[in-house]
Amino acid sequence: MGELHETRRERLTELLAAHDVDALLVTRLVNVRYLTGLASSNAALLVRAEGPAVLATDARYAGTAAEVCPDVELVVERQTARVLTTMAADGGVRRLGFEAHDVTVEKHAELAALDRGIELPPVSRPVEGLRVVKDEAELALLREACAITDRAFERVLPLVRPGVTERRIAIALEREMVDLGAEAPAFDSIIASGPNGAVPHHRPGDREIAAGDLVTMDFGARHGGYHADMTRTVAVGRVAGWQREVYELVRRAQQAAVDAARPGAETVAVDAAARDLIKAAGHGDDFPHGLGHGVGLEIHEAPLMGYDRTGKLRDRVPVTAEPGVYLAGRGGVRIEDTLVVRADGPELLTKTTKELLVL
Amino acid sequence: MGELHETRRERLTELLAAHDVDALLVTRLVNVRYLTGLASSNAALLVRAEGPAVLATDARYAGTAAEVCPDVELVVERQTARVLTTMAADGGVRRLGFEAHDVTVEKHAELAALDRGIELPPVSRPVEGLRVVKDEAELALLREACAITDRAFERVLPLVRPGVTERRIAIALEREMVDLGAEAPAFDSIIASGPNGAVPHHRPGDREIAAGDLVTMDFGARHGGYHADMTRTVAVGRVAGWQREVYELVRRAQQAAVDAARPGAETVAVDAAARDLIKAAGHGDDFPHGLGHGVGLEIHEAPLMGYDRTGKLRDRVPVTAEPGVYLAGRGGVRIEDTLVVRADGPELLTKTTKELLVL
Repeated sequence: MGELHETRRERLTELLAAHDVDALLVTRLVNVRYLTGLASSNAALLVRAEGPAVLATDARYAGTAAEVCPDVELVVERQTARVLTTMAADGGVRRLGFEAHDVTVEKHAELAALDRGIELPPVSRPVEGLRVVKDEAELALLREACAITDRAFERVLPLVRPGVTERRIAIALEREMVDLGAEAPAFDSIIASGPNGAVPHHRPGDREIAAGDLVTMDFGARHGGYHADMTRTVAVGRVAGWQREVYELVRRAQQAAVDAARPGAETVAVDAAARDLIKAAGHGDDFPHGLGHGVGLEIHEAPLMGYDRTGKLRDRVPVTAEPGVYLAGRGGVRIEDTLVVRADGPELLTKTTKELLVL
Repeated sequence: MGELHETRRERLTELLAAHDVDALLVTRLVNVRYLTGLASSNAALLVRAEGPAVLATDARYAGTAAEVCPDVELVVERQTARVLTTMAADGGVRRLGFEAHDVTVEKHAELAALDRGIELPPVSRPVEGLRVVKDEAELALLREACAITDRAFERVLPLVRPGVTERRIAIALEREMVDLGAEAPAFDSIIASGPNGAVPHHRPGDREIAAGDLVTMDFGARHGGYHADMTRTVAVGRVAGWQREVYELVRRAQQAAVDAARPGAETVAVDAAARDLIKAAGHGDDFPHGLGHGVGLEIHEAPLMGYDRTGKLRDRVPVTAEPGVYLAGRGGVRIEDTLVVRADGPELLTKTTKELLVL
């Protein structure tokens, strides 16, 4: 992975001039990881127009850092942002950009107080910008995270039956994912049964599955730092007419969004591909969230796809497509895939069937 | 819990004048939870010298918020800090303090740009200050978190034997805690066997336990939002002379720290109670971290206890005491309890034996 990270740092270096800085202080931990491979709870990276990158981390991570990214200069120090700001100033940097969406007002004041004659202009998410389009190494990790997610779903299906609590299903899913090789669940699993299905972010509780329920299962595996995200809604015992109707509507809407996810497509148009079908069926108000989001080193990252989000999709951008219809007091349906936008059509990473399963 | 949270907000209100503000915008989520009971990934709270507190959160959490904290005014809005800043200005607030250790430079610029004629002075951790001394409801939750931790340790001991990987032990511990009623592990468990024991924050991997190993197990349960933290080091198969010697040294040092943890004690003196014994045995350089930290709604919170940390302990403050000795290439020992500082002597919340277990 060393070369990959070097390539990423070179691409960032090329952006410095456009941001009108001669170096960048990267403090957001997920961005440090993207640029070095080091996963740490205390690290920062200095990327300069001239000279090698410098990674600062504390003694706990020094060994791992030396192993994972031998090609950067390493400084072992607890006050990571401070030591790098001082080094930048001493090394002749005059304008050191910082990540204004990460650095707190308190931390910024502390860096400014170093008073080394260095300017600290804010920069707007250059690393996040690079992270949108994934390289093939990233897509391979994401593909495996999604494969684990698919297999865990299949293994847990026999448990989805009357009398079993939502919480028990959530725990079983998470354990299957870890047993299948996931580092951890990508996020807190949502298991929403019966009327709870009307709450998009329901927390799984002690409600027992009952015959006649729809059960929404929203979960995913994390693998190599990359996050899978999948939702399926299944029926238990029997299916009422309204349930099948809503299910088929969401299924068609989700497929329309997948089909619209092409390089160059406006994100608002991809959202509309699903939303317009749901609106036309009279359920516009019952779909109160955006269509989806990018996934990668974070479970929610750029691009966000909603009715109020501007931007265009590009080749090799993984996103979710997850329309839903929620009927208060009755239940809901959400169907979600993780897919990669590709010039020759979307690559579905989650492959579980979207036919309505009646268990 | 409603009254408890109201009491906490009242205590915060009494601090506003000393911070020279007429209201405080609480954005740090753990502080919002402390003051309202609402656990949310998007929430903020406005606490004013005059008038009721206002809680802002988005639609996902609106139902829970209404249920958990019916006694505050609720605003359902995605841009939580922005809506509360506007409300404060419109309601006559002139100086609205903000949490400078939480608000990013970007977010602060956005709030300042609202341009409502309101001043936004930074304030230094008033809510964290209140959180140091726990009320009995908090201690009850922490006590249960520690009891779960003790029981999980006992249940997993039979698995600690030659041929079993560190990772398998970590997973088993975490699953036992959840089965015993924990919401989740309080942090990523550390299982460090043999030479890995020399790395204080070792991540459990594929190394198999071998006869003659010391195995350090650092883990804890989260219950009702409160974090337990315990470490025990056990021996497998047989114990070498140097292992028993280091173990007894750390055990004595840890007991000395526990005994020193009294109301009014300087944190640096509590650290020294353990550190001086370890230094006297010639292992001063082998104990490269602080003695311990406060626990509560966060796994690491005030007070931090180290050789370079000033401050005094108080009654009803839960802290960890966790000295260790780490010998590169050979192994290490750490022993840690969570305890509550009490006027009549420390209350140990983790009760697992500290005699050396030879499995």
